[in-house]
Amino acid sequence: MKNDRLAWFGLSGLMTVSSIQANEPGKKNIRKSQPPNVVLILADDMGYGDLNCYGATRYTTPNLDKLAKNGVRFTNFYVSQAVCSASRAALMTGCYSNRVGIAGALFPNSLVGLNPNEETIAEVLKKSGYVSGIFGKWHLGYQREFLPLQQGFEEYLGLPYSNDMWKYNIDGSAANPETNKNKASYPPLSLIDGNDPVKEIVTMDDQAQLTTKYTERAVSFIEKHKKAPFFIYIPHSMPHIPIAASNKFKGKSEQGLYGDVLMEIDWSVGQIIEALEKNGLTENTLVIFTSDNGPWLNYGNHGGSAGGLREGKGTSWEGGQRVPCIMKWPGRIPDGLVCNKIAATIDILPTLANISGSQLPTNKIDGVNILPLMIGDQNANPREVFLYYYNANCLEGVRKNQWKLVLPHKSQTYEGFAPGKDGVGGKTGNVKVESALYDLRRDPGERYDVKEYYPEVVTELSKIADEARHDLGDGIMNIKGENVREPGRIKSQ
Amino acid sequence: MKNDRLAWFGLSGLMTVSSIQANEPGKKNIRKSQPPNVVLILADDMGYGDLNCYGATRYTTPNLDKLAKNGVRFTNFYVSQAVCSASRAALMTGCYSNRVGIAGALFPNSLVGLNPNEETIAEVLKKSGYVSGIFGKWHLGYQREFLPLQQGFEEYLGLPYSNDMWKYNIDGSAANPETNKNKASYPPLSLIDGNDPVKEIVTMDDQAQLTTKYTERAVSFIEKHKKAPFFIYIPHSMPHIPIAASNKFKGKSEQGLYGDVLMEIDWSVGQIIEALEKNGLTENTLVIFTSDNGPWLNYGNHGGSAGGLREGKGTSWEGGQRVPCIMKWPGRIPDGLVCNKIAATIDILPTLANISGSQLPTNKIDGVNILPLMIGDQNANPREVFLYYYNANCLEGVRKNQWKLVLPHKSQTYEGFAPGKDGVGGKTGNVKVESALYDLRRDPGERYDVKEYYPEVVTELSKIADEARHDLGDGIMNIKGENVREPGRIKSQ
Repeated sequence: MKNDRLAWFGLSGLMTVSSIQANEPGKKNIRKSQPPNVVLILADDMGYGDLNCYGATRYTTPNLDKLAKNGVRFTNFYVSQAVCSASRAALMTGCYSNRVGIAGALFPNSLVGLNPNEETIAEVLKKSGYVSGIFGKWHLGYQREFLPLQQGFEEYLGLPYSNDMWKYNIDGSAANPETNKNKASYPPLSLIDGNDPVKEIVTMDDQAQLTTKYTERAVSFIEKHKKAPFFIYIPHSMPHIPIAASNKFKGKSEQGLYGDVLMEIDWSVGQIIEALEKNGLTENTLVIFTSDNGPWLNYGNHGGSAGGLREGKGTSWEGGQRVPCIMKWPGRIPDGLVCNKIAATIDILPTLANISGSQLPTNKIDGVNILPLMIGDQNANPREVFLYYYNANCLEGVRKNQWKLVLPHKSQTYEGFAPGKDGVGGKTGNVKVESALYDLRRDPGERYDVKEYYPEVVTELSKIADEARHDLGDGIMNIKGENVREPGRIKSQ
Repeated sequence: MKNDRLAWFGLSGLMTVSSIQANEPGKKNIRKSQPPNVVLILADDMGYGDLNCYGATRYTTPNLDKLAKNGVRFTNFYVSQAVCSASRAALMTGCYSNRVGIAGALFPNSLVGLNPNEETIAEVLKKSGYVSGIFGKWHLGYQREFLPLQQGFEEYLGLPYSNDMWKYNIDGSAANPETNKNKASYPPLSLIDGNDPVKEIVTMDDQAQLTTKYTERAVSFIEKHKKAPFFIYIPHSMPHIPIAASNKFKGKSEQGLYGDVLMEIDWSVGQIIEALEKNGLTENTLVIFTSDNGPWLNYGNHGGSAGGLREGKGTSWEGGQRVPCIMKWPGRIPDGLVCNKIAATIDILPTLANISGSQLPTNKIDGVNILPLMIGDQNANPREVFLYYYNANCLEGVRKNQWKLVLPHKSQTYEGFAPGKDGVGGKTGNVKVESALYDLRRDPGERYDVKEYYPEVVTELSKIADEARHDLGDGIMNIKGENVREPGRIKSQ
């Protein structure tokens, strides 16, 4: 899964003119005199089943549950690809990650990153006078030109990539030259402040302070910018392994360290909510909480839970790509709404553009405005279709409404292998996946292939797959059957 | 699964003295001047994922969702065995069904039924002056001596057994002498009023009227008995196949007939709630809604959904035995409570005994008082352990808190077989299941065996299994390893 062959960049990539524009005449555009502040919180490797309001037990997530009670909870919300960098690239740009040329995870030796010519959420909102800060894990290129301050953010404190890309990693795999021979030679992992490293992460206690540090800086940012509309992006390093909780939460959950870590993330959410309240910003702030991908299941009790969904991180099964998503915006989003329709992280950018009255990026994007879903419009269904791409930008599945057509592909699998324990990863396998049709409304666990009964659905979804291959490519083969990648508007190094 | 060798009866069964008594000195017993009315509604073959408030989409269950919003929703609620008669025997007696000698499903040629010496919920509540009515499917013996009026109920309208035990069954299997050769020779299937058949079910339209008929009689019963404390048991025939909806709901759901049928059951719940309200009984009535077992998955779009749980009806996997359960009791049960602790249908009888101040049955029972869970006592955990028995009263698994030890057994399986469609059942298989340990808090889909990491848990749960074999037997082998059944306090015919 970790393969930096798959990272791309290009400052002069192919541009296409967007067919979607915010504020088109006749389109409903909702705006207050000052557009709302936006706080976007992203957990790392947190699974669909990891919050109380998504079925978790044995630890409490009261602040997140309250967010859901006072807002909307999505049950069919997707990331673009079930791995760190690709998922974040999609979130930041409103594009399937292959359109912007980021696949898989970037590594400490990757010289590539998110093309600065792509417009991030921060850049889109800047057009409407927003000031943006990011406090957490970026993972879209650690070279200066790719760092957040060069991508629309005014302030940055956080790790440049994952917290396990670390020479001191406690994971047994780090000590095993066959499985992870490069970890010991990794460069220092440091907190970046602005564009510069300020503190190396050396001990597990350093790891345990990350959630607190990100939170404190986010709270300061709220204080500092309470008059301007702001966008705060908090991509937590946790609960990605190696997991660590500060003394505030260590030993607090019945589920051991993983529960402690989730409780600390929940605490962080509570701190943000409290800071908004103290500064009189509750009413005019949209808070969004989601995850970058499903759980890393072979870490057992140090990994999360996909609930009843199939597989996890690093796969295009539901457990990999479907994540919790909660949004709160008092007065606009009704209390306790549950949205069962499809939505995705790529929809956040165009939705925020609509809400703030900002122009969409000039480049074509894939996201749609999901504000109608957020406010409970029963007739709206802005995202009927979702495309499941994975690592080498392979098209592995297509969803339309309740139907998911799985396309033949090779996949990592956790099933049939005992998960690991206490931070040491268990084995995973690789399997050839055959074509199958699942009715996700009654079979969210993807267990019962019904393609023989619904040939017309297979035909319809196959056609959507072909269209997607024209538009976005397919890592396995192009429409001529050639084994090539079609990486959208980026170029190979 | 359908095997009437497994039905037993005995009027002179072995009695044991209960070690549990209601109203023991020092035990908290909550009672108003008049104990609450109780309405117990049971859906048939409705799965864990079949209500909006448990994740269903594409049809609406507003009355049930409101019930959950104004009451408690259980997420780890179990039936005693995942098949009609065994499940109902347990519900009515507060005992694992093997303790009272009912296994599997009774058939139209079964001469046995629930031992009239067992005390049903109706008989327990009668001691406190309750009057009881049952409107729906009994399925605990169709011979007069076993019918509800001989088991504590004052009024009965309903089918004596399942609606597919019917010579006119549209299921393709009925027409196939190899798969279901006896159906054409089945006796007339008639509604029973009191002790006597009053109307034969001949057409699908007759089937479509069942939900309405049960509901109307339940509403009349409420009107008639509004002054006495009453117990109403409404075991719907639906959504058991052959499914049918009345014209009120036909075509109303986006999910086709199955959704229509669920919407009609939801309507029925709404009618009951409205009747209680009209008669000023809302405050002093406990309403309970649950299902007799998980979905019959090989009926595809005419069957229900287990959500993300494994397998369905006729298995001891979670999809077979875990069902929705909602309870509302204004002023006692807090609004919107979610209970993640273990509870089971066998706990309903002792809980109602406690609430009403009624003496428990003299015979030993297996249920415990779950009132503390209903009222949100965070420290309570009255049911740490649940035993998974199936058809031939085999002990197939043990759960303690989050851990489920699956014991070696043979099981029906739906996986790997295409489900059927439009009322015609698909094939199922049989598999040998090996021992496995699942952490249900993070793996509700029972996919990742972790027994190698938690040998101490395996030892603890194995000990509980051994104790259960002493107490309740094991259909495969007794504690001496002999291949016998130990059917508790009943005798073979």
